Amino acid sequence: MFREKIKVFDCTIRDGGLINEHKFDDEFVRAVYKALSEAGVDYMEIGYKNSKRLFSPKEYGKWKFCDDEDIKRIIDGIPSKTKISVMVDVDRVDLEDVKPCKESPVQMVRVAAYVKDIDKAIFLVNHFADKGYETTVNIMAISRALDNELNEALHQLEKECKAQVIYIVDSFGALYQESTEYLVKKFKSILKSKEIGMHAHNNQQLAFGNTIEAIIHDANFVDATVYGLGRAAGNCPLELLIGFLKNPKFDIRPILDLISKEFIPLREKLEWGYIIPYAIAGMLDEHPKAAMALRDSDKKENYREFYESLVGDDMD
Amino acid sequence: MFREKIKVFDCTIRDGGLINEHKFDDEFVRAVYKALSEAGVDYMEIGYKNSKRLFSPKEYGKWKFCDDEDIKRIIDGIPSKTKISVMVDVDRVDLEDVKPCKESPVQMVRVAAYVKDIDKAIFLVNHFADKGYETTVNIMAISRALDNELNEALHQLEKECKAQVIYIVDSFGALYQESTEYLVKKFKSILKSKEIGMHAHNNQQLAFGNTIEAIIHDANFVDATVYGLGRAAGNCPLELLIGFLKNPKFDIRPILDLISKEFIPLREKLEWGYIIPYAIAGMLDEHPKAAMALRDSDKKENYREFYESLVGDDMD
Repeated sequence: MFREKIKVFDCTIRDGGLINEHKFDDEFVRAVYKALSEAGVDYMEIGYKNSKRLFSPKEYGKWKFCDDEDIKRIIDGIPSKTKISVMVDVDRVDLEDVKPCKESPVQMVRVAAYVKDIDKAIFLVNHFADKGYETTVNIMAISRALDNELNEALHQLEKECKAQVIYIVDSFGALYQESTEYLVKKFKSILKSKEIGMHAHNNQQLAFGNTIEAIIHDANFVDATVYGLGRAAGNCPLELLIGFLKNPKFDIRPILDLISKEFIPLREKLEWGYIIPYAIAGMLDEHPKAAMALRDSDKKENYREFYESLVGDDMD
Repeated sequence: MFREKIKVFDCTIRDGGLINEHKFDDEFVRAVYKALSEAGVDYMEIGYKNSKRLFSPKEYGKWKFCDDEDIKRIIDGIPSKTKISVMVDVDRVDLEDVKPCKESPVQMVRVAAYVKDIDKAIFLVNHFADKGYETTVNIMAISRALDNELNEALHQLEKECKAQVIYIVDSFGALYQESTEYLVKKFKSILKSKEIGMHAHNNQQLAFGNTIEAIIHDANFVDATVYGLGRAAGNCPLELLIGFLKNPKFDIRPILDLISKEFIPLREKLEWGYIIPYAIAGMLDEHPKAAMALRDSDKKENYREFYESLVGDDMD
């Protein structure tokens, strides 16, 4: 698949940070940035821009806050065309922490929001756009959005929001290809002035398949992480995506080296990937937090009981 | 997805046997058969029917030969509607080893063949059909089949072959959804009197996605293995497929139990699944044997060098 407009967006450090409280050391983050740059990846999301009034820097690593000085130290001296992105959650950012784009090493700000928070997201995006950043809105938990509310949000985004890209975020790894197709077509039909993005989770081993599906139906921003690193089941593996895309600007070799040297050892320390409780959460369209709690308990391989606990609630 | 005609075909023991020379012990095979029976899985393929003149029973486990007596011991006393299948390779079977269906615990014989061997496959299938078995032809290495040769083979199968089902076998895990769609539509258009089957490999984490794709385009026989067990990258995970199919006859719980009790411990002893050299082989449309050799060497994590070795050959 070669389409000039497709942008590969890496969120290894940002999504991976959800497993280790964003405590990646500088050498690791530099190794990732260097490999992505050599591989021709378009964007690297390095973390969240969270308020230090709400979260303690003693408790969390630096990639939960992404101070400009920390980012500058990472990218210093590495030749690169890869743009740096940070993610912002609704209600968790101090606007004054984000300097005008010209004074910052960051080029893109992505705002993550549920459908219900779309007004807040639009406010934030327009604020960051006015500061000179490229911007996106990432609509989380899309598999649970009510169609009428989603439609209204998309119309609002098209009319009121300066974001260049609106993302489908399959937070729970619950989408199958048919729903991915349905959503991308819906987004395309309403968001006529914007690009569509896809951020998939791998609970059911469908992150890459759904990303291909989104590309087929004209999504041009596709998220991935090295070796699928990410919370719980993780994300679309970057190496597979680069193997699929035929744009000659991409080179898989630096990513293969990075996996050999950094991610195989990392997988011994952090758990992510195809693990049955995450698969169960995905097929039941549930947040992975119950499955993550299970994996931290002495019942971590007790899959049937976990399944029963999720399907057993009476809801009337 | 609920379509009455969809048949779920488990080949855990048969495909898994390719990793351990078919040396699963009886307790393990019985546990799999029992769980599949309780889960409502339609078929279980228990191994290969190979000639003992060609392969030594001293070297290989019993599921490379599948004597009727061995199968009877496995299924004895377990209530089940799951049919038993064996696989036959062209040029490796002694026809007299296969008794008439009425005298055997086996209900289906699947013949695996490359396009070039289609005449031999038709001969074998018609022989087994005449003995009373349900039959299929599984066309291996489909990602490398020349279109004109494949078309001719399919026309021949439609005219001359008694098989009920013709399978697309993505031996190298190289197919993306678009090619899966193309092939299923081609098969459907030529094989008007037959069902289409899908056997996917998971090199690029697309086995499940491609199986869904095949189902969308009307394939009704779908292969899977428990926890994706199978040679190299393994297969479409049965638990995901059952989670996707909405036919109320399926129950995922016995499969979850089986994974907890048998497959998590097994994974400590046997290697299969998403492993970078298998992913590389898949994206380059190569047989996994070079990757398997790498995994047995002290360069097992040396991905870049392995990639270079596969793409570096001059072919003029």
